[in-house]
Amino acid sequence: MEIIESIAELREALRAKKAYSKTSGFVPTMGYLHAGHESLMKKAREECDLVIASIFVNPTQFGPNEDFEKYPRDIQRDSELCRRAGVDIIFHPQPHEIYQRNASTWVEVEGMTDIACGAMRPGHFRGVTTVVAKLFNIIMPHRAYFGEKDYQQLQIIKRMTRDLFMPITIVPVPTIRESDGLAMSSRNSYLSPTERQAARVMPRALQVARDAVDSGVIDVSEIIAQIEKCVAAQSMATLQYAVIVNPETMEPLRVTTGEARLLAAILIGKTRLIDNIPLIPKAAAPGSI
Amino acid sequence: MEIIESIAELREALRAKKAYSKTSGFVPTMGYLHAGHESLMKKAREECDLVIASIFVNPTQFGPNEDFEKYPRDIQRDSELCRRAGVDIIFHPQPHEIYQRNASTWVEVEGMTDIACGAMRPGHFRGVTTVVAKLFNIIMPHRAYFGEKDYQQLQIIKRMTRDLFMPITIVPVPTIRESDGLAMSSRNSYLSPTERQAARVMPRALQVARDAVDSGVIDVSEIIAQIEKCVAAQSMATLQYAVIVNPETMEPLRVTTGEARLLAAILIGKTRLIDNIPLIPKAAAPGSI
Repeated sequence: MEIIESIAELREALRAKKAYSKTSGFVPTMGYLHAGHESLMKKAREECDLVIASIFVNPTQFGPNEDFEKYPRDIQRDSELCRRAGVDIIFHPQPHEIYQRNASTWVEVEGMTDIACGAMRPGHFRGVTTVVAKLFNIIMPHRAYFGEKDYQQLQIIKRMTRDLFMPITIVPVPTIRESDGLAMSSRNSYLSPTERQAARVMPRALQVARDAVDSGVIDVSEIIAQIEKCVAAQSMATLQYAVIVNPETMEPLRVTTGEARLLAAILIGKTRLIDNIPLIPKAAAPGSI
Repeated sequence: MEIIESIAELREALRAKKAYSKTSGFVPTMGYLHAGHESLMKKAREECDLVIASIFVNPTQFGPNEDFEKYPRDIQRDSELCRRAGVDIIFHPQPHEIYQRNASTWVEVEGMTDIACGAMRPGHFRGVTTVVAKLFNIIMPHRAYFGEKDYQQLQIIKRMTRDLFMPITIVPVPTIRESDGLAMSSRNSYLSPTERQAARVMPRALQVARDAVDSGVIDVSEIIAQIEKCVAAQSMATLQYAVIVNPETMEPLRVTTGEARLLAAILIGKTRLIDNIPLIPKAAAPGSI
């Protein structure tokens, strides 16, 4: 496994390796890797001859009052995880490598970036799409792997790739969870032991919504009210948003009679957790009458 | 020469042809081709094994009150010119092919798009960078050819390509002019014979500026005043803008002591003409003391 910091060296290495690789897979990350990232890398390893992972804490996707500076970093541990997962090349650039002098080009997806995390974090998704477009152009993979945990991001990346005709297949990978249901996230490391206990409200709230839909509730405002009640019962938690949307366009829904995705963000102390699940309406559930 | 309308067919044709081509060159156009486009195609022909030209009147780079509908089109004549110039493939898509249902992704260069044509035509350059990014991703050429007549566009495309690490070399090609100095443009076809005579004010105004610089004037406001006076002398002409900028960043200059580019737009009746020239300060001119 190689760890490469410069674009020129990366391109050189890719040229050499791609000559005898039929398919290349790319896993973009911000590092501080966990089992979720590992599952992306393992899937890439299964499907591709050449696997490239990037570790880059992208400054442009953090707001001015967000956690860019204190975002956790541990390249040593990350390298070990990548090696175990079968990664061939780690791309680990410094910000000035990706954002050159006078860099002023942005890639932006409109509309579906305005709700949920997009509404809470202005400019966040613009930073994400811009850096992913840059990384795609540098690496030129056949396939790129994104976790469903960042569901809105996944859909935005799919839209960008489609709209700009990037010749890359976006592969969604299911969320990996702790044994109590909390979705794996690098930001879980911010949680104190008490907060970690309190964070169990997130999977509980999602389950409340799923139970409601399973019991036949289709009215979104009623489902959201049940989520609010569930989160309110945990004094350390604040519901930042809970929305039920069309899983492809991110348009908010009023009723869950078709394909729907629940997205939620909860603050536990200062730590922001996000998660999401599909909601399958009763009539559409397999085996239902 | 093939004329292809669909992206899928184009990709199929490119796959076949690229297998035995070392370099591919791309000339994006809006059609209604003239000797300026021809010079781009001939340069591509000289430098590349495979030459692709696109003919696409891109709706997103026209403002709501601009000439999208009446922009001149003549695919028969254009095909003949392409054939003579040695083009291998013409890509001639319909708008719905390039802008699919729910298309919502934009590529935007900030800052250098705010002045000159960018100030006059809000959203214009966003439309240009977006369509060029799409065409680049569809065609994936090694080299792409842009005329210096649209100088600000050329610099914006260079910036976009650099910032997004697109693996494409942007090749600038000098402006082709009529015998009286008017830059070739598809929009010249809008001019009545009287207007065509009046349009000579554009090369005259550029020459006035060059003469001023040659005679030692370095103050931009003085040079612009001379241009204004020159244009005012032609009753059919209205100066829309004249700016002297850093040729790479498009930042307005106050003095022409270093590299500088003069950009101007003049209305002749309802027809908008643009042009530009480099201004070489006396001290920097070759052979000067």
